[in-house]
Amino acid sequence: MKIRIYNARILTMEKGSGLFQGEIHIGDDRITYVGEEKNAPKGEWDREIDAEGNVLLPGFKNAHTHSAMTFLRSFADDLPLQEWLYERVFPMEAKLLPEDVYWGALLANLEYLSGGITANFDMYMKNESNAKASVDSGFRTVLCGSINDFGGTVEEMEEEYRHFNDYHPLISYQFGFHAEYTTKREILEGMAALGQKYQKPVYTHNSETENEVAGCLERYGRTPTAFLNELHMFDYGGGGFHCVHMTDEDLQICKEKEIWVVTNPSSNLKLASGIAPIKKMLDMGIGLAIGTDGPASNNCLDMFREMFLVTALQKVKEKDASAVDALDVLRMATVGGAGAMGLTDCDVLAAGKKADIIMIDLKQPNMQPLNHIAKNIVYSGSKSDVKMTMIDGRILYENGVYHIGIEPEEIYAKVNESIGRMKKEH
Amino acid sequence: MKIRIYNARILTMEKGSGLFQGEIHIGDDRITYVGEEKNAPKGEWDREIDAEGNVLLPGFKNAHTHSAMTFLRSFADDLPLQEWLYERVFPMEAKLLPEDVYWGALLANLEYLSGGITANFDMYMKNESNAKASVDSGFRTVLCGSINDFGGTVEEMEEEYRHFNDYHPLISYQFGFHAEYTTKREILEGMAALGQKYQKPVYTHNSETENEVAGCLERYGRTPTAFLNELHMFDYGGGGFHCVHMTDEDLQICKEKEIWVVTNPSSNLKLASGIAPIKKMLDMGIGLAIGTDGPASNNCLDMFREMFLVTALQKVKEKDASAVDALDVLRMATVGGAGAMGLTDCDVLAAGKKADIIMIDLKQPNMQPLNHIAKNIVYSGSKSDVKMTMIDGRILYENGVYHIGIEPEEIYAKVNESIGRMKKEH
Repeated sequence: MKIRIYNARILTMEKGSGLFQGEIHIGDDRITYVGEEKNAPKGEWDREIDAEGNVLLPGFKNAHTHSAMTFLRSFADDLPLQEWLYERVFPMEAKLLPEDVYWGALLANLEYLSGGITANFDMYMKNESNAKASVDSGFRTVLCGSINDFGGTVEEMEEEYRHFNDYHPLISYQFGFHAEYTTKREILEGMAALGQKYQKPVYTHNSETENEVAGCLERYGRTPTAFLNELHMFDYGGGGFHCVHMTDEDLQICKEKEIWVVTNPSSNLKLASGIAPIKKMLDMGIGLAIGTDGPASNNCLDMFREMFLVTALQKVKEKDASAVDALDVLRMATVGGAGAMGLTDCDVLAAGKKADIIMIDLKQPNMQPLNHIAKNIVYSGSKSDVKMTMIDGRILYENGVYHIGIEPEEIYAKVNESIGRMKKEH
Repeated sequence: MKIRIYNARILTMEKGSGLFQGEIHIGDDRITYVGEEKNAPKGEWDREIDAEGNVLLPGFKNAHTHSAMTFLRSFADDLPLQEWLYERVFPMEAKLLPEDVYWGALLANLEYLSGGITANFDMYMKNESNAKASVDSGFRTVLCGSINDFGGTVEEMEEEYRHFNDYHPLISYQFGFHAEYTTKREILEGMAALGQKYQKPVYTHNSETENEVAGCLERYGRTPTAFLNELHMFDYGGGGFHCVHMTDEDLQICKEKEIWVVTNPSSNLKLASGIAPIKKMLDMGIGLAIGTDGPASNNCLDMFREMFLVTALQKVKEKDASAVDALDVLRMATVGGAGAMGLTDCDVLAAGKKADIIMIDLKQPNMQPLNHIAKNIVYSGSKSDVKMTMIDGRILYENGVYHIGIEPEEIYAKVNESIGRMKKEH
């Protein structure tokens, strides 16, 4: 498909580039032109779209989530953390079948598309179902390994790594384990060796709660970041999900080892984990990305909510209304996420890059007046402003309608069936 | 107009009532029936709406805002508070003409409608323009007095009170002043006397920032709440907007004098003011309502964002993931707001009440599966789930289309003209 989108305001998110009036050309899965309006040849296009002055920018990257957990959305809220996890989440997860993960992931993909999210970094089980859901719906997914003491081996992960990195252009795979506190030292050492062998980054939940850090200090006399670093886990980079409770030494390690921090502010509030020191990280030049976390803990998969919170929570934490500029947050949600996920082809709008593009509708009351469009997206934007979501050159969502080849109603019915069956077994 | 909405899930928000399947009848501005499905007489209706299982509940009440400030949205973000207020906001407000307030308020009304907000408690200047904007668009507005040392007298407020309470069924007016720190004692005493004379509540910004409380302690040796209470300001109730920095004594006064607390969590984050002690207030039985604050400080007028934050911020503040149940938050956003604003006819869905009703679309990915619909609205809901907004029996917003008799495009153009003119004069 050759698509031309003209009469657009464009935010390429390239460094130093501001908003400009122009057009974008797409050929199959790639962007072929981004720039000023030009007299594009007639008849050359499968489709020409008049953007009517609306904004094109790179799709948001959801850099940490557990998509298929949609089946547990609003199943167990307002409970103490331990009760939530051990009495509600784990027992239900034990009943999960591969098809539950498939439909649950599809439901999440719908929500991503409706909110301008064009890729997810997904840590969950039954990855075959997850990958199939994304391929079937045209969604881009980076799978993240998640082994721990309760499931998976380093050997299996190596196999998954080879398998999913040669699976489909929309699917890739990164090494990862669940967390230090759920994974014995032997496996952690195996993971570090695996990263070394392939010279690849390793990802994990890191320092999400005070308890987690205290436990690691007790076990190893080190914070999780320092301990894992001593195991040479991050010699080729990697990332930490959450990173709420980080010491200055931890942050220094992140900086030196180029470890991405993926922040999940809604989840950290809702599960009472805390507020990550994002301003400090930003000032140090640590790479930052944003995730929604899974729908059992957040509960919605909405990058607009997360973007607002990334800056607003720092303002209250630092008692400084100027902390963390909205434009830095927009970078985290797009370019930062792509960097953290290894999607270097999907980071900005430029010729040669993958066509993962969204259109923001400025003809919505919350986007008016046009004082500062980019800041408006962060402070006032909402899923209802997403007019179009394109992944790999395909328009999968436009004006409220999904074009993924599967009816939303079927997905809703299947996910309700899944959780209905599990509740009965409960 | 006689309207019947059937095949609905209904949340009346009456105490002790849960979600049930049923229908609602509307005759002109009032609800005439709420209950189980019944064989409604054919031909009796101007319109029959199949809700297709979607949820009807009372509209959200935005219990503190400055609607017309839409013209300053995204005009001055990421600045220290003093610079934001004194160098950016005040100089622009000095240029405001009555028509700027009219169009700015209309823009806010569009946003309210799109997000299921059916009434606002509005504290701003040029109330005639504000009231006209709401009457012209069919919106319900409770105006709040806002005199202070820089404008207005107690006598003028008394006149406004009589004028606007006899203006139009959609408009009412409550006594109010801007804040203790902007209003000299003489005016405050006049306000207290006015409340006494009419035996009516008085509303004000209260204890929004630490500085404000410190200033009052220095001036009067009392917190704002204690000082104003000593002036007999709240002998007939009233309300405080923000109430972030409250002592136990302050809360006790709120409890005893039935002073409503209207919390504005997004604004309190973005302006680095703090997190209000909502859990404590809730435990004490203090009346609670929710506001967005104005679009210059928030920047969006979205009750879904506020509802999520009311509970999520308490969870992190109290380090307890079970703090402030979502259902309590839904009450604050509907029944609580109506109580705070004196809209006792608009609080719940019941025969005889005003027909201020919204429909939430469950056929959206973020509302699925149907584990717990009411919690879903608070934790995962978004403006994009609002399928219909009815005020005073009139459907003003339905499936993304406004029916207010004024084109959104005209409103956008006018507000851009306003801020454009002011920037030129700047």
